[in-house]
Amino acid sequence: MSGVRPTGRAHLGHLLGMLMPSAELARADNDAFYEVADLHAFTTGFADPDAIRAAREELVIDWLAAGLDPKRATLFVQSAIPEITELHTLLSMVTPLSWLERVPTYKDQIDALGGDIMTYGFLGYPLLQLCDIAVFRGEAVPVGKDQVAHLEFGREVVRRFNHLYGDTLVEPRALLSEYPAVPGSDGRKMSKSYHNTIDLADDEATTIKKVRGYFTDPQKLRRNDPGRPEICPVFALHHLSNAARVPQIRETCASGELGCVACKSELAETLNAFLRPVRERRAAIDRSRVAEILADGNARAREVANATLRDVSRAMRLTD
Amino acid sequence: MSGVRPTGRAHLGHLLGMLMPSAELARADNDAFYEVADLHAFTTGFADPDAIRAAREELVIDWLAAGLDPKRATLFVQSAIPEITELHTLLSMVTPLSWLERVPTYKDQIDALGGDIMTYGFLGYPLLQLCDIAVFRGEAVPVGKDQVAHLEFGREVVRRFNHLYGDTLVEPRALLSEYPAVPGSDGRKMSKSYHNTIDLADDEATTIKKVRGYFTDPQKLRRNDPGRPEICPVFALHHLSNAARVPQIRETCASGELGCVACKSELAETLNAFLRPVRERRAAIDRSRVAEILADGNARAREVANATLRDVSRAMRLTD
Repeated sequence: MSGVRPTGRAHLGHLLGMLMPSAELARADNDAFYEVADLHAFTTGFADPDAIRAAREELVIDWLAAGLDPKRATLFVQSAIPEITELHTLLSMVTPLSWLERVPTYKDQIDALGGDIMTYGFLGYPLLQLCDIAVFRGEAVPVGKDQVAHLEFGREVVRRFNHLYGDTLVEPRALLSEYPAVPGSDGRKMSKSYHNTIDLADDEATTIKKVRGYFTDPQKLRRNDPGRPEICPVFALHHLSNAARVPQIRETCASGELGCVACKSELAETLNAFLRPVRERRAAIDRSRVAEILADGNARAREVANATLRDVSRAMRLTD
Repeated sequence: MSGVRPTGRAHLGHLLGMLMPSAELARADNDAFYEVADLHAFTTGFADPDAIRAAREELVIDWLAAGLDPKRATLFVQSAIPEITELHTLLSMVTPLSWLERVPTYKDQIDALGGDIMTYGFLGYPLLQLCDIAVFRGEAVPVGKDQVAHLEFGREVVRRFNHLYGDTLVEPRALLSEYPAVPGSDGRKMSKSYHNTIDLADDEATTIKKVRGYFTDPQKLRRNDPGRPEICPVFALHHLSNAARVPQIRETCASGELGCVACKSELAETLNAFLRPVRERRAAIDRSRVAEILADGNARAREVANATLRDVSRAMRLTD
């Protein structure tokens, strides 16, 4: 089980950290659930519902482009599964407020986004995330390091529920992603909010231009100056699309033999080659299929969610 | 629209403050909704789901005994209407956390119940209350003074939602209850948690015994001592069941002519007379009808709730 917030165009970081691993997992396991987490997008993006709506379709297309086979995985929209919100309200009754306030990302986000963003739903973000998982009895959740605390919180809530009302929910475990952080053009983590991304929807010329704009070692001003590859984001990207050449690039950058212009040209070429099949699949997708894929996925997801809610309601003595 | 938490046996305070006014309103208005607020009971009673379940049926019986006609009002169970919880999660995204933290009853309850009780759902209590109302497009809500702040909070959330997504929800207004506070045997507000109640389910002998146990003016020790009716809870109760005799009782108590024993006997007799029709209806109710009444009410309530959620989803651009 995994979910992604529809907040805009997917970039290389999403592709490597999330979309391709999802497609991989779905190939290995026919019982995978992938969620377009539109309600989560409302926790920060509530003022622009049209943007969230438009990004929903884009996210599905990005997943398909990354190789996800909708026949082998259940691809669905969070807001189409009311059982998730029902579980969210039910679990809110047994979730100590202090557990939510202690989730480390919560305080980080307040600092990053400012106090204005603070809604009741934003505070409950990790609980809603647990409901996404628990309603499908999700056992394994591919996450990055920053999400491990959310999952640990979710496991505690499940244990508390099962302790109060009997074994009903499944404790999800984290599948830590092996993919390295993907640096953006300014050397920081690639992120839409930093405007430093290489997007799946970019064409090859745009990719070349963006790679040319990457920060490099500031002490390497001319071709023959020795470089420090370990601090250079361009060198880091070579690991992703040009792994075989990494030892030689390290050596010739450090010696000064390899200039940044040539190094970037080579990176752009390999990145474009790596992204080409994804971009070709993306361009070939019949957008009219998206609604059909989601309708099918939503129906499958609701069936599972409904069965879980029946058990939860019985456990809480709301129904017989 | 009105809701009551199923937390145990109804007492005279419930009857006068809530159950009888509900029955009255339903007679005047065929479009009234009455909710057995079982999810609200979980905000504090989550550790004992069996008690909440048992109290659900009792509450319906109390309402029927108070004269509520289930044909003229929609009587339903909160947890059977998942649209309420769906709306709760959706509105959580636009509800500033600070608005919930500022609701006066929130801090009062923390002080009264201690920090342990503090769950995410408890903090969201006034928001869930708004959803109970808004999902039925409730226009008028009979409330006591302590609930006015909740309703004002709810009106603000509705205005914020309508401002963000277009006019969709109705701002509910408070119908302030005219009934006076009903004192319990110790002179404090009648409340289950103070163990000072006269219950609908009590028989007449128990009522007489409980009235005998009421506090009276501590300076009036003997029959001929002058009393201070204005501080006496027994005198306050005479207003409810024995209004015609109030002037004379005030006078003869103050002069010392009327002793407390005689005064209490008279009160017990009039209270039993007042409660007799309610108790008779209560005893005559066929308990097997309760499930049927609720199934019928739940179906009617869901139809209205579903239509509201369709509008809310469209307004938030979650559906077309």
